[in-house]
Amino acid sequence: MNYSIDKALEILEQTPKTLSSLLSNLSDEWVFCNEGKDTWSAFDVVGHLIHCENTDWIPRLKIILSNKDNKTFDPFDRFAQFENSKGKSLSNLLDEFQKVRAENLEYLKLLELSEAELGLKGMHPTFGEVSLKELLATWVTHDLGHIAQISRVMAKQYKNDVGPWTAFISILNT
Amino acid sequence: MNYSIDKALEILEQTPKTLSSLLSNLSDEWVFCNEGKDTWSAFDVVGHLIHCENTDWIPRLKIILSNKDNKTFDPFDRFAQFENSKGKSLSNLLDEFQKVRAENLEYLKLLELSEAELGLKGMHPTFGEVSLKELLATWVTHDLGHIAQISRVMAKQYKNDVGPWTAFISILNT
Repeated sequence: MNYSIDKALEILEQTPKTLSSLLSNLSDEWVFCNEGKDTWSAFDVVGHLIHCENTDWIPRLKIILSNKDNKTFDPFDRFAQFENSKGKSLSNLLDEFQKVRAENLEYLKLLELSEAELGLKGMHPTFGEVSLKELLATWVTHDLGHIAQISRVMAKQYKNDVGPWTAFISILNT
Repeated sequence: MNYSIDKALEILEQTPKTLSSLLSNLSDEWVFCNEGKDTWSAFDVVGHLIHCENTDWIPRLKIILSNKDNKTFDPFDRFAQFENSKGKSLSNLLDEFQKVRAENLEYLKLLELSEAELGLKGMHPTFGEVSLKELLATWVTHDLGHIAQISRVMAKQYKNDVGPWTAFISILNT
């Protein structure tokens, strides 16, 4: 497969529903468990995804499409969710994510980006020059990566309970 | 966390809905893509999960709880889905999975298993002696492992499109 906006939208549009299906109605033990010191829980990941919607994908797209001379992105804060999610429930976060994601996809669709526009460049603070297409393809893989991460974090809680099956469940050994 | 039936049910009950959210309405390119020769697509994984419902978790639980002298499980067929899913759509498979999973969880709940029963043993054809608790804990991690697998398989389709972001999206490098 090669990146296309239509196919990418299929994934991006489902992610809020997927996360709600995976996480709604779970006990706090599932929601707040992590993989050890300095690792993230499902709650942390959903907060991070909201912060990406607010400061990464569309804000960076806007920089790329702008007429500015300097198209360097603001550095991304990987720890913003620890402050931003304070006092909120997972249900609050899932609702918030659904809302900002829907707004961002609505905006993306209205742009009707051309192939030429997908080739426009911005400046990543670490990587240097990146294209709009690379940014938008990353959005999709980033969603899927975090769905996999949440699944892994929760699976690992039973690592000591599965006995010899550990050998067959590769996610427990990553 | 330690295994408990109530907490395990929270995950097991959500999996059909999670898979439907993740996979419904996707183009065939997403549904049938895989990671290369002899690897599985989302379509293959859902077929495998159905086969597990039909031949693994509850059938093996029944062997453990039976009065038979020989409590050796039948070997599991990892390739059954390639035959069983023929001629079906992903939508067929998702419906079938939802149905058999619901029936199996209904059965599990009716048993009201005690701690003593969770300690009963069966004989795995490869591992030897395993407990009912280990089997049931594996059921949960197996679900989560395959959700992560499907996410990884789909994410990798854009591996060549994300440019330098490959370095930040660890799922692309597994």
